[in-house]
Amino acid sequence: MIERVSSSPVRDLLALIDRPEVISFAGGLPAPELFDLDGLRAAFHQALCEPVGRRNLQYAPTEGNPELRALVAARMTGRGLPTTAADLLITTGSQQALTLVVTALLGPGAVVAVEEPTYLAALQCFRMAGARVVPVAGDEHGMIPEALEEVVRTERPTLLYLVPTFANPTGRTLPAERRAAIAALATAHDLWVVEDDPYGELRYRGSPIPALAIGAPDHVIHLGSFSKIGAPGLRLGWLRAPAALLRTLVIVKQAADLHTSTIDQAAAAIYLAATDLDAHVESLRTAYRARRDAMIAALPSTTPPGATWTDPDGGMFVWVTLPGGVDTAVLLSDALAHDVAYVPGAAFHATTPDHATLRLSFTTNTPEVITTGLARLAPVLRG
Amino acid sequence: MIERVSSSPVRDLLALIDRPEVISFAGGLPAPELFDLDGLRAAFHQALCEPVGRRNLQYAPTEGNPELRALVAARMTGRGLPTTAADLLITTGSQQALTLVVTALLGPGAVVAVEEPTYLAALQCFRMAGARVVPVAGDEHGMIPEALEEVVRTERPTLLYLVPTFANPTGRTLPAERRAAIAALATAHDLWVVEDDPYGELRYRGSPIPALAIGAPDHVIHLGSFSKIGAPGLRLGWLRAPAALLRTLVIVKQAADLHTSTIDQAAAAIYLAATDLDAHVESLRTAYRARRDAMIAALPSTTPPGATWTDPDGGMFVWVTLPGGVDTAVLLSDALAHDVAYVPGAAFHATTPDHATLRLSFTTNTPEVITTGLARLAPVLRG
Repeated sequence: MIERVSSSPVRDLLALIDRPEVISFAGGLPAPELFDLDGLRAAFHQALCEPVGRRNLQYAPTEGNPELRALVAARMTGRGLPTTAADLLITTGSQQALTLVVTALLGPGAVVAVEEPTYLAALQCFRMAGARVVPVAGDEHGMIPEALEEVVRTERPTLLYLVPTFANPTGRTLPAERRAAIAALATAHDLWVVEDDPYGELRYRGSPIPALAIGAPDHVIHLGSFSKIGAPGLRLGWLRAPAALLRTLVIVKQAADLHTSTIDQAAAAIYLAATDLDAHVESLRTAYRARRDAMIAALPSTTPPGATWTDPDGGMFVWVTLPGGVDTAVLLSDALAHDVAYVPGAAFHATTPDHATLRLSFTTNTPEVITTGLARLAPVLRG
Repeated sequence: MIERVSSSPVRDLLALIDRPEVISFAGGLPAPELFDLDGLRAAFHQALCEPVGRRNLQYAPTEGNPELRALVAARMTGRGLPTTAADLLITTGSQQALTLVVTALLGPGAVVAVEEPTYLAALQCFRMAGARVVPVAGDEHGMIPEALEEVVRTERPTLLYLVPTFANPTGRTLPAERRAAIAALATAHDLWVVEDDPYGELRYRGSPIPALAIGAPDHVIHLGSFSKIGAPGLRLGWLRAPAALLRTLVIVKQAADLHTSTIDQAAAAIYLAATDLDAHVESLRTAYRARRDAMIAALPSTTPPGATWTDPDGGMFVWVTLPGGVDTAVLLSDALAHDVAYVPGAAFHATTPDHATLRLSFTTNTPEVITTGLARLAPVLRG
């Protein structure tokens, strides 16, 4: 029973900034001008032609479209995480994957360990399930394994939730040695780990780091998404889980929505089979890299002395920490008056909010607009 | 935490009967040859062309596509249940609507009152939430209001779940006076009612009966679906709920999957705006009526003396009760050996299974195939 639930501050904010003159760094959206509209339109057309058209409008198995599962498995394997179609459940976005895992694994009063700050909708999901959320200390390289070990000993969490690569909201990436240490802890203490990986392919520099799942295949649930490399409107995600848990998750999904859209899955499978997705992802990387660079270049003149920010190797977000006792939620109305928007950082914290933080997304604006928007933001942040 | 969950017997069975020579009356599927494939293909094409194409691939509001909500509201109003877009939440199939309601309203140990037998996936959904399911006595016209009143007094249910029109699995329809009596009970005892209405438009004789929601607008959550009048593969349903509950359900849905597929919603809105859906539904009625009639005509020679069956005014199902101590789950393997399938009735019961019952769907086979299939079933049932 949901007695006290609140809407997402990010979404409530997005409702307020829907004026065309506002330059928004608030959303977590991919750039729509980079969607492969022609490719996806052709895939939907083929999916709705015979001999498969009628089948693609019918009810379908809960586990997901077999071709799509095989294609996703091949791509994951190619990225270094050996996966078969049988390891995967297709979900209605990776948000659903998270809710299915929570439903399957967490009872009221269960403890979930998280990075702090972390993905807002994950925190909401854990709270809605009646779980207690415990933050684990981190630094500029993400979660500190020794801090996790201490939390595991004292709090006995059932689940650890992590976005190890280009995290939301910080953009931080957990190094390989920390991944290995956390995987070893998960195995030693029988801890479930959700490795949420929507951004992993959006790397703008450096080399890929092996998935956390490699180090603890029996304890890690790896979540992937079509939203950032394809388009979010199809609401297609997937999860890779150990076999016994996967069977339970299929049953939970059956109650949740029977299965994910047959037509969207079929179109995605046709699209993935027909498209050079590597080339498409490379074009996303090129565009987003320039946007990231423009944001990083402008931040010294946007922020007051003493401010710090992350310098992400990939993903969508830069995380800014202002000096002194400022409250970025209070500054936001001033920012909106200057026709520029961001997300105040407090809500991304599980326990003790840091009100001097804010999240900036660099994906939906061109470098020129980013420069203009941050110039608008400068007088707001520099006071 | 899900400790003991079982897969749906219907779905497990469907996995076994996927041989082309089997005539299946087991599924609850609409007939694919009646899908408006051309109309839906054209709608998806338009939804994926500019100026709306990129918007229809992007993230979208949790509440649903505004045009689709308005079109569904207009259709519901036209069918006699005054509804505005603001009363509606678009869901990923009406199965999701049910799970959202359960998450919002039921805590562990809550009591849910149901018809017996009733929709299998609803029972699974209630059990997964840790609710206790209490059956209410019914007869050939569905639930008996006096029996519900007794259950309300003794068991204090939070929720009543009903498929009042052409029920799954029985095909029964609750008369207007019983709807009014149940609505009055809901209001008097502050009882939530889920009025699940996926089949309401599939009426083959008689006149429509006002929705239960009309009699208790503050207590009834009315669920609708595109699956039976359009196509289930789009996974589009909706719920109509009182404003305060609707706000909570939007937040629960945000955690469940952020929103339903943007592209599927947009295509459905374009389709509904461009199509004479009344004419399409009339063509479904014509085809299904003939299939229903073929099944009813063949049942006397299919069943042993003493068997009874429902004679539905609409929907998809006929419910058969055999005489004596037979177990239709045991007979099923014999039926499959004769290349014909049905669903044993036991699993549709909340508490005391009646093993002599079975469900037959008449929607996916032509009248000729129905006659052939029931001729195969006759030696199995007549022994």
